[in-house]
Amino acid sequence: MPRYKLTIEYEGTPFVGWQRQDNGPSVQAAIEDAVTAICGEHRTVHGAGRTDAGVHALGQVAHLDLPQAMAPEKLPLAINFHIKPNPIAVLRAEAVGEDFHARFSATGRSYLYRIVNRRAHLALDRGRAWFIPQALDEHAMHEAAQALVGTHDFTSFRASYCQAKSPVRVLHRLDVRRQGESIEIVAEGVSFLHHQVRNIVGTLRLVGEGKWQPQDMARALAARDRKAGGPTAPPDGLYLTEVRYD
Amino acid sequence: MPRYKLTIEYEGTPFVGWQRQDNGPSVQAAIEDAVTAICGEHRTVHGAGRTDAGVHALGQVAHLDLPQAMAPEKLPLAINFHIKPNPIAVLRAEAVGEDFHARFSATGRSYLYRIVNRRAHLALDRGRAWFIPQALDEHAMHEAAQALVGTHDFTSFRASYCQAKSPVRVLHRLDVRRQGESIEIVAEGVSFLHHQVRNIVGTLRLVGEGKWQPQDMARALAARDRKAGGPTAPPDGLYLTEVRYD
Repeated sequence: MPRYKLTIEYEGTPFVGWQRQDNGPSVQAAIEDAVTAICGEHRTVHGAGRTDAGVHALGQVAHLDLPQAMAPEKLPLAINFHIKPNPIAVLRAEAVGEDFHARFSATGRSYLYRIVNRRAHLALDRGRAWFIPQALDEHAMHEAAQALVGTHDFTSFRASYCQAKSPVRVLHRLDVRRQGESIEIVAEGVSFLHHQVRNIVGTLRLVGEGKWQPQDMARALAARDRKAGGPTAPPDGLYLTEVRYD
Repeated sequence: MPRYKLTIEYEGTPFVGWQRQDNGPSVQAAIEDAVTAICGEHRTVHGAGRTDAGVHALGQVAHLDLPQAMAPEKLPLAINFHIKPNPIAVLRAEAVGEDFHARFSATGRSYLYRIVNRRAHLALDRGRAWFIPQALDEHAMHEAAQALVGTHDFTSFRASYCQAKSPVRVLHRLDVRRQGESIEIVAEGVSFLHHQVRNIVGTLRLVGEGKWQPQDMARALAARDRKAGGPTAPPDGLYLTEVRYD
């Protein structure tokens, strides 16, 4: 059956997450239901990563097999027609070979985490950023972040129920930059453990507030113990921005 | 009574507009109700401009008189506490003299209009930008926009029910710029007529699509007839970004 790669944007707020679950609406189920409306039968849509409830995507990637070939430029229009009013948009579709797998073929993933650092609570950015009223030192956060770049055992920043076989991951980049009241954290790696970015951001906040020194980050990493890391940042500020393939 | 200037951010989607009205929730009423909860009596909050239903603000300005003086840095916290869960945030408060009036003292206003120009409908930007799937030429739009900069009779871009005495307005700047799939239009002037920015943007779209030539904009302006202008752009993409005072 012909296989297609989809690039997808969504607002995570109303969903239980990417993955189809019994306890509420998921992004995967919404796309699969739209595909069913198009081709008359259920097709599984395989995502590159399982974003959690409330996590957004600017460039999630998924693949699916259709019973009949379809012009790739028509597939986004057809899915988007049926997916309304869900806040999900298929941005692009490409025909790919049967050896392409959205998750297993991926060679890199990028995330953006947005913090709004000001006194007043969020109005326009509610659900789309982490509101932190305490003044944060983004330079200290960036310095601390560099200790995590490279190949490491990330047990200290991994959800206790993470199902990955190995806690070792490759982090290519972890940058912290401020633009006015907005602090943006960009994380790039091959793949990520469950809650890895949110646990790193929650720990960087401790550094930003001055509760931790930048060098405490290396100590937390070396401990290989979730209790040595900081708290989990909320999903609101997290965006899956890109999935890369060779 | 001591007077305070407030700088306010809000998401316009759930409101009938800035102004208190009988037919639904307004930004003004939400702030006034919060102020009543603080000081125990109704105080009118005077806005610098009456944004329409669905129009957002990053920097609306308003003033109010309180029965008793209050530390300016505490006022935003107090209003924001009571205003939840409305998507409104008071960013700053300043003590001002009795001669300060949010509307009549203002010497300049800035608006941003956001268009998302791509094939796929909006997910994260729904209600926050104008979705236009037809390819737009932002250079032609910017060229056309320059005909409107200056002091002109803007009857062609004024709502038929606009109550301003004069249709003459000063437009200091009207820039059209693209960043990827996002087209941002920045309008700066002393003050604006009802629907002026949205009617200008709706007309610029015609230029962007190639239905109008850039020089048609000057012709529409010179006609001094609302029927010579283009359609009204939706409120979703409009943001009141700044109100200036001398």
